[in-house]
Amino acid sequence: MHPTDDTKSHAVNPNEAPQTAEGWYQLHELWHVDWSAWRQAPPAERRNLVAQAADWLRIAAAAGGKGDAACYGVVGQKADLMLLFYRESPAALHEAQQSFRRLGLARYCTPAYSYLSVIEASLYEVQAIAHWKLAERKIAPGSPDYATALDEELAKQRKVLEARLFRSIPEARHICFYPMNKRRGEQVNWYALPMDERRKLMKGHGRVGQKYGQQVTQVIGGSIGLDDWEWGVDLHAEDPLIFKKLVTEMRYDPASSMYAEFGPFFIGLRHAPDELARLLNVE
Amino acid sequence: MHPTDDTKSHAVNPNEAPQTAEGWYQLHELWHVDWSAWRQAPPAERRNLVAQAADWLRIAAAAGGKGDAACYGVVGQKADLMLLFYRESPAALHEAQQSFRRLGLARYCTPAYSYLSVIEASLYEVQAIAHWKLAERKIAPGSPDYATALDEELAKQRKVLEARLFRSIPEARHICFYPMNKRRGEQVNWYALPMDERRKLMKGHGRVGQKYGQQVTQVIGGSIGLDDWEWGVDLHAEDPLIFKKLVTEMRYDPASSMYAEFGPFFIGLRHAPDELARLLNVE
Amino acid sequence: MHPTDDTKSHAVNPNEAPQTAEGWYQLHELWHVDWSAWRQAPPAERRNLVAQAADWLRIAAAAGGKGDAACYGVVGQKADLMLLFYRESPAALHEAQQSFRRLGLARYCTPAYSYLSVIEASLYEVQAIAHWKLAERKIAPGSPDYATALDEELAKQRKVLEARLFRSIPEARHICFYPMNKRRGEQVNWYALPMDERRKLMKGHGRVGQKYGQQVTQVIGGSIGLDDWEWGVDLHAEDPLIFKKLVTEMRYDPASSMYAEFGPFFIGLRHAPDELARLLNVE
Amino acid sequence: MHPTDDTKSHAVNPNEAPQTAEGWYQLHELWHVDWSAWRQAPPAERRNLVAQAADWLRIAAAAGGKGDAACYGVVGQKADLMLLFYRESPAALHEAQQSFRRLGLARYCTPAYSYLSVIEASLYEVQAIAHWKLAERKIAPGSPDYATALDEELAKQRKVLEARLFRSIPEARHICFYPMNKRRGEQVNWYALPMDERRKLMKGHGRVGQKYGQQVTQVIGGSIGLDDWEWGVDLHAEDPLIFKKLVTEMRYDPASSMYAEFGPFFIGLRHAPDELARLLNVE
Amino acid sequence: MHPTDDTKSHAVNPNEAPQTAEGWYQLHELWHVDWSAWRQAPPAERRNLVAQAADWLRIAAAAGGKGDAACYGVVGQKADLMLLFYRESPAALHEAQQSFRRLGLARYCTPAYSYLSVIEASLYEVQAIAHWKLAERKIAPGSPDYATALDEELAKQRKVLEARLFRSIPEARHICFYPMNKRRGEQVNWYALPMDERRKLMKGHGRVGQKYGQQVTQVIGGSIGLDDWEWGVDLHAEDPLIFKKLVTEMRYDPASSMYAEFGPFFIGLRHAPDELARLLNVE
Repeated sequence: MHPTDDTKSHAVNPNEAPQTAEGWYQLHELWHVDWSAWRQAPPAERRNLVAQAADWLRIAAAAGGKGDAACYGVVGQKADLMLLFYRESPAALHEAQQSFRRLGLARYCTPAYSYLSVIEASLYEVQAIAHWKLAERKIAPGSPDYATALDEELAKQRKVLEARLFRSIPEARHICFYPMNKRRGEQVNWYALPMDERRKLMKGHGRVGQKYGQQVTQVIGGSIGLDDWEWGVDLHAEDPLIFKKLVTEMRYDPASSMYAEFGPFFIGLRHAPDELARLLNVE
Repeated sequence: MHPTDDTKSHAVNPNEAPQTAEGWYQLHELWHVDWSAWRQAPPAERRNLVAQAADWLRIAAAAGGKGDAACYGVVGQKADLMLLFYRESPAALHEAQQSFRRLGLARYCTPAYSYLSVIEASLYEVQAIAHWKLAERKIAPGSPDYATALDEELAKQRKVLEARLFRSIPEARHICFYPMNKRRGEQVNWYALPMDERRKLMKGHGRVGQKYGQQVTQVIGGSIGLDDWEWGVDLHAEDPLIFKKLVTEMRYDPASSMYAEFGPFFIGLRHAPDELARLLNVE
Repeated sequence: MHPTDDTKSHAVNPNEAPQTAEGWYQLHELWHVDWSAWRQAPPAERRNLVAQAADWLRIAAAAGGKGDAACYGVVGQKADLMLLFYRESPAALHEAQQSFRRLGLARYCTPAYSYLSVIEASLYEVQAIAHWKLAERKIAPGSPDYATALDEELAKQRKVLEARLFRSIPEARHICFYPMNKRRGEQVNWYALPMDERRKLMKGHGRVGQKYGQQVTQVIGGSIGLDDWEWGVDLHAEDPLIFKKLVTEMRYDPASSMYAEFGPFFIGLRHAPDELARLLNVE
Repeated sequence: MHPTDDTKSHAVNPNEAPQTAEGWYQLHELWHVDWSAWRQAPPAERRNLVAQAADWLRIAAAAGGKGDAACYGVVGQKADLMLLFYRESPAALHEAQQSFRRLGLARYCTPAYSYLSVIEASLYEVQAIAHWKLAERKIAPGSPDYATALDEELAKQRKVLEARLFRSIPEARHICFYPMNKRRGEQVNWYALPMDERRKLMKGHGRVGQKYGQQVTQVIGGSIGLDDWEWGVDLHAEDPLIFKKLVTEMRYDPASSMYAEFGPFFIGLRHAPDELARLLNVE
Repeated sequence: MHPTDDTKSHAVNPNEAPQTAEGWYQLHELWHVDWSAWRQAPPAERRNLVAQAADWLRIAAAAGGKGDAACYGVVGQKADLMLLFYRESPAALHEAQQSFRRLGLARYCTPAYSYLSVIEASLYEVQAIAHWKLAERKIAPGSPDYATALDEELAKQRKVLEARLFRSIPEARHICFYPMNKRRGEQVNWYALPMDERRKLMKGHGRVGQKYGQQVTQVIGGSIGLDDWEWGVDLHAEDPLIFKKLVTEMRYDPASSMYAEFGPFFIGLRHAPDELARLLNVE
């Protein structure tokens, strides 16, 4: 899992695929509650199952120090509950998901949607800094020392990134989760752009993100090769209007207006273990 | 929730994303009724559940002074009931939706579709007026006082808008609800147009709307970052033929013919709390 | 509902949206039968429910003189039953649909598809005749008398149309129902064509229709603003091969080859009230 | 049903829609078996129901001399059973489908997919031969005798076709069924090509088919105006690898590479009435 | 099944469809577990059913020496179990799938997705080598001996391929399964490219694959004519991050960036027969 390792192998061809560092694997699990069956269960059983679920959520969030977990109530009918897990591997995520299925509460839940990704930080920026530092040190691209020196620089910058990659779930009240792709149209194709062009577009894109940086925490999950879209985006904010403002402003930015394709959007309200009773309509 | 606040932060870059003011958050919830189970319930139980639902609808519409609610019977099989809530936040909408799920009637209902948005007024027009007033006062764009003066003007115009943004649900007998996008095609892309072009197109579009203004009340819900389409449109009218006339005429207007993409259309008939018994086939 | 009224309001801008006259609102309701549950009901109950349904269908077809109704058996698995209602308003359609849901038979039925539209006649042709008559009378477009004279001419022609708009359901044995759109592609866009071009294309299209006029009755339901497609087309014929011949020939006509997009096709066999027992496998 | 009749009516406009002759109507009905419920039925009941189904299949295949029927086990989860019916009319197909729904076995089956079409032979080739014969006889297109002479020639050639149009179901062990369209894109549009171009493309396409003619029997069902795609294709072969080889080779042929759009593919293994017990896991 | 046979018939037209050799047929079967029903079964029954399933999996993997089988736990909600079968024919796959449906465990499983394909090796490379060897031997294309000599060369190279085509399932802990197409767009169309162009693009594509060859085993299933996509790809690796790295890097390679279209992605964790109890939450 040490992110430095695979940078090395990619560094040889800086013109092609963007380099990324990866942190926790993430699983979003959305569930419908069968309210009709749930309401017919005896009140005492419902209370027990909610208490059991609250205990489970506390343990899942502790994650033995290796990850995090949270539960959200979903606005509208796309789902009733959204569980979010951070874990060190797909195997650990699988264990977390199975532990939920063993709960009594799971008997009243049916699948609504899930999404697998891994927290990702683009190395576009890191690379730019690293290349600039090497230029300062007069190490020319292609020279014998270049690859080694670049690896060293990247390793330094990655330290900074690790705190972001292996973070805990932001504590804000609201979450906005959506998957997205970069367009691969017949004329307009992100993946056919030269890296410089992509880098420039992402820089403009980043500026919009920074503008809202105080009000929203963005967690990008990379999911090429893992799930049906290329990224899963989580926005965490106290004020949900920020979701609209941020996504709207980005939509007029060329990186999105020309190249982004969006999946379903899910809006959730974080519920702590103590608040599960209210979320589940248990008095 | 005071709409003036975020205008300020956006006003600095008048060439890009359109500025909007927001009012009530809206939730459309569409439900299928399980007629077979419902008919098998004893008549006395059905009467009780309908009375309970009618009481609930009255309270939900009162909304403690902060919003509104209404219930529609849906024509065709897309759903049987449509609930429409106006509330001050997604959290208040979530509370409203959960209160419905606690009703006995909800045991006979299964989800059909839902849509989350926030009532939105475009500031295209407001801005045009404000800029023109500043021009009258000889305050040039880019001059040191411009941003402040613009904010003041916008604040004035917004007062007028607030009545629209925090309104009650129009009382007309018929509703037409549909979500829509502006196209982001490879050649034809709304979001890649310069703002002037968009403003001009929206003006023509507005003229069609005004022509029908006497016969139909339009409520636009913005939903970028909140749900799967960019807007949710509600048309309220006494004469349902107006829905066809209005949407047809708009479809030949360039803002729609070139740029609009439409989701599902739902046609509903408003039922007051007293009329729920008839809507639910309870004698 | 008097179709003359809204012509007046549209006549002012003959270059844009085509003008239409409207008649009965139509609802197509398609149902799956739960054959397994139905077969397990006692034979006497099934006989009673079929008799009740047959009575209901007779009353629904009479429609108090304001509409019609029919029932079709559907070929294949898209549905088992198709109900077709003609009524004077969406509210009357809603009442008709609810009356079906109150039948005992409805307990064995689950929704398969529905479609809401209103019988529509294009005024392209009517207008052409009216304009030509005014030209004969030397009343120039733009002259003070023009609008009034045009309205009078249109009113006359509409009398002829009304018999078509407020008709009964054609009695042919077979029905072919499908919804369709005119294309709004990035390059090929019906709604961006000048009206003259559209009129010319529709004329060619009409010629194909006329060629089959003896063998098939076509009922066009307009559904912009009412349902998910722009039109719902019903073809009624004794010989089902005509459906294939007619739709194929039209597909090579430019109005369709370039501009038509088709939804699902449903083929039904009309069953009179007396024939419901056979349709429902009741001996 | 006599195929000569409608040739006459089409012969007047040889530049447009291709002329076809039609034979049996076809219905593909795919069913999921509810294995869980089926396994819980008592063994004696299952044996009875299988015997009843086997008898039914024999009678359905006999079809009173007017058609055929067959049953296939489907590989994978798209369905468990595929029934294929040939009949003289949609009404006769409807009767066949209803007779299956009356079986005890049908209680354990739920719909998976169905497809309605009519066996079709293109008259491209027939016409080419006929025109060439008329040219030999020095009857010029447009001359008074041309239409009559052409009809006579076509009638002769159609005799040959009838054996193909009113055939029995090929007996090969494997079936590959898929629906398809010809593309109607904004730039690449089959239906906007001149007939000569289409004829040339279909000739190349035909050559690929002929190459595999020994190993595979192809039955083309036309379904424009009858179902959601334009054609339903059945390939029947002893060696299932031929499906891959044939469809792959065609995909590189311009008629397919540019113009074909494909629906779902279903692979089935033919089971005679005697083999239904094995197919249904009855010991 | 001898792969040499059909090469012969294709060798005559080296400009068109790529030539492939085929090995085992593959079936991916994904299942949802009904956890609610499963948890309600008595522990002893669950233990028995798991033991029965483990025995079944051992026998299915042995496959009488003609194939293999494996079971994976799926991350997320797309499915709970993925079964993978290698067999010599669709008929043998059908038998394998039916044997699973006969298990007691299958009563608790509902279909999630399945995919039929046949392990395929492209002969692009083999042909290049063969042609080059013939050139060395001065046998000119078109000369009388060419076809025979080419067949001999191809036969030699195929021996090497057979080990790959008739392999056992790679033993790695993680699987990534996804179906894909080559694009057939209106402007960008893989199937309309000359073979040389395709060969060049695939060579670049292959280089990316080779780079990861140590860390991942790729098994390509061809499915044109067999299932809804053109290929089913299995990646097997110990480190699941490799799936993301490999698929990302390929996405920037022109063969993918311009021409690949991807279906759903499924990530699974291999479970040996002994591990089924844990996978099924049986203590």
